[in-house]
Amino acid sequence: MSEVRTQALACRDAAQAMFALDSDSKRKLLRDMATALEEGRDAILAANRRDVQQAAAKGVQGAMLDRLRLDDTRVIGMAGAVREVAALPDPVGLVTRRETRPNGLDIERVRIPLGVIAMIYEARPNVTADAAALCLMAGNAVILRGGSEAMHSNLAIGRVLQDVLERHDIPAAALTLIEDLRRETMVELLQLSDIVDLAIPRGGEGLIRFVAEHARVPVIKHYKGVCHLYVDAAADEALALNLLVDGKTSRPGVCNALETLLVHRDVAASFLPKAARVLEERGVELRGCERSRAVVAGMRPASDEDYAAEFLDLILAVRVVDDLGVAVGHIQRFGSDHTEVIVTRDESAARRFVQAIRSAVVMVNASSRFSDGGELGLGAEIGISTTRLHAYGPMGAEALTVERFVVRGDGQVRHPQSIVT
Amino acid sequence: MSEVRTQALACRDAAQAMFALDSDSKRKLLRDMATALEEGRDAILAANRRDVQQAAAKGVQGAMLDRLRLDDTRVIGMAGAVREVAALPDPVGLVTRRETRPNGLDIERVRIPLGVIAMIYEARPNVTADAAALCLMAGNAVILRGGSEAMHSNLAIGRVLQDVLERHDIPAAALTLIEDLRRETMVELLQLSDIVDLAIPRGGEGLIRFVAEHARVPVIKHYKGVCHLYVDAAADEALALNLLVDGKTSRPGVCNALETLLVHRDVAASFLPKAARVLEERGVELRGCERSRAVVAGMRPASDEDYAAEFLDLILAVRVVDDLGVAVGHIQRFGSDHTEVIVTRDESAARRFVQAIRSAVVMVNASSRFSDGGELGLGAEIGISTTRLHAYGPMGAEALTVERFVVRGDGQVRHPQSIVT
Repeated sequence: MSEVRTQALACRDAAQAMFALDSDSKRKLLRDMATALEEGRDAILAANRRDVQQAAAKGVQGAMLDRLRLDDTRVIGMAGAVREVAALPDPVGLVTRRETRPNGLDIERVRIPLGVIAMIYEARPNVTADAAALCLMAGNAVILRGGSEAMHSNLAIGRVLQDVLERHDIPAAALTLIEDLRRETMVELLQLSDIVDLAIPRGGEGLIRFVAEHARVPVIKHYKGVCHLYVDAAADEALALNLLVDGKTSRPGVCNALETLLVHRDVAASFLPKAARVLEERGVELRGCERSRAVVAGMRPASDEDYAAEFLDLILAVRVVDDLGVAVGHIQRFGSDHTEVIVTRDESAARRFVQAIRSAVVMVNASSRFSDGGELGLGAEIGISTTRLHAYGPMGAEALTVERFVVRGDGQVRHPQSIVT
Repeated sequence: MSEVRTQALACRDAAQAMFALDSDSKRKLLRDMATALEEGRDAILAANRRDVQQAAAKGVQGAMLDRLRLDDTRVIGMAGAVREVAALPDPVGLVTRRETRPNGLDIERVRIPLGVIAMIYEARPNVTADAAALCLMAGNAVILRGGSEAMHSNLAIGRVLQDVLERHDIPAAALTLIEDLRRETMVELLQLSDIVDLAIPRGGEGLIRFVAEHARVPVIKHYKGVCHLYVDAAADEALALNLLVDGKTSRPGVCNALETLLVHRDVAASFLPKAARVLEERGVELRGCERSRAVVAGMRPASDEDYAAEFLDLILAVRVVDDLGVAVGHIQRFGSDHTEVIVTRDESAARRFVQAIRSAVVMVNASSRFSDGGELGLGAEIGISTTRLHAYGPMGAEALTVERFVVRGDGQVRHPQSIVT
């Protein structure tokens, strides 16, 4: 049997032990993990220095090197994040519905863990602790396959957490780290459909496509966020301006940042010049359709590629639309099912927008930047699904569970002739 | 562009039209479909006669030929099933949770349709109407790829339903029938991951494995039901006997029939001889472990293959276990995550069983034969998932939807410095 299959089977056995833990035991486990991360930070930082040196020697620099680097503050932040997960409501055991059937059967829908979750991720070592904590809190076992740049850091963090598992009499395999980072080993992991219940890739589009292409286990994908702000004819323009600035400039490199502004033609002449001014003051480059360029001088023309782009940068595509229907059509054609916003004081327009848009998050008069697990009340986030299955939008602990049926009776049979006593 | 991709794209456009329908419009659509099936039954029966003749000429006979055959009663039954779906609660638009965040944002979780569902199924032509009705009621568009034996029947049923769609100003592509039944075309359909939101295979294990193997779109699988009845030390033996007879003999060929009986050693000597007598009277062959064979004379020995088998026949594997823990371990090793039953009057034993068993349906003192969408209150069933993702156990209309986020604010921004007005 291959090494990765052996590891995964041990992880599946450990999943049974995780399933048996009650909420208090899981909280205690996670709080002890947080403490262990703080106490073990010398070893973690030493391992991280090796990763940073090797990456720097390979020519990695700037933001990428910074994302890899840990320091005292970051390790303490990591521990704090684990403590926050320990304080979340436990989704496992939650009875979501209950019904008594006419024959007296009592039917409950109850949440249980998924089982074994494989996280496939890239450079940032804090994902190792974050993802492990959230998976374990939801009663799952987890297989972590991080990037090669952070290998030593991930192993050091993983060992600290595994020690805590063992102290709690849980097999260390409940948190399994894959050290063999060859692509073919990842492919093998992704095809263990009798063992792995879900794979979650986190990283660039290349990684996610690779996982989706090779997986035989279920995958929840998060491709990209091409988020739209539609300024309706009945918009409060001052409010729209605030949402636009927040959506585009507060953190342009993240998936819930705005990429496209759609403006109803009735307000284009009034709104667009103001929008252009505040955005250009903040260094944003605008690329627009002909009608928007007629209102704002010097705007570069926008291509279909611009409308489909996730810029992750201070660039905004702009289009003037005839009505809400055209705005919806544009989003259907170019959107990525992530997050769309309408600004309007017209309740009926808001309702029509919400009813026509099928994205994971649809907002009325609020910033797209709130499309985030923490901001939407999930507490912590394991990813944002743009696949309409199982979970759609930001995923918290609950998305790492599934509902099943618990049925209680007093001897009911389906066919009366089965009664022999 | 390939024919199947062109068809799927048209189906995706039609999904937008289905998403826009309110509950009343969908109910009216389905009721009109039921009437049209009744009124169009001459054409459907004529097409079905062609299928039956061709199948008979190929040597198909017995139960398989019977499953293919339609008559007046069966078409009227099909129409009745569509009417029942029309009367189900509409899952779309259901607000499952609502929260106001400290910053005043109003967050709702609301159910929306999945989008485009591909049904891959085998001989029975009634699936065409059943599956279409349930997918459409949940606001989805559907691609139907049935078996070649029922091709003429499926096309005739599909045309009747498409006529009704068009009369309701919904594109006929909302119900797309794949006429090209080559395997490579099915593979292409299963890889349209930018168009198809979910594939549901219904049929034999070979079909399901083929779909799982080749799909790049999400798949919900239903492999098999190796269902267990565990008779605890504190069981009501008379009740256990009824559940055993119902589970094994009331319809042995279905997935929620019992395949294995586990008996606590304390009650084996008393229970097993009675069980053997009533089962043997009903033609059931028993295959048991050594300890059960010591109590029941003439029982054939059971192999590991027997314990792993979905007999779908009047055969039952039997094992005497030392305690509840061993019963759970047996189910973990040999079970298929479908349905397991404990018979006990001991509340604590029942609780331990429910907490340790991770199958889709776990029952206390009730027949495994109730593990069915209708019996569990779902109204109608599109399949039974043994995959712990999205849906686990019997799937009704709700399993053809997903929750997304609807957020309402009054100008909230994430970063205060974004306020420019």
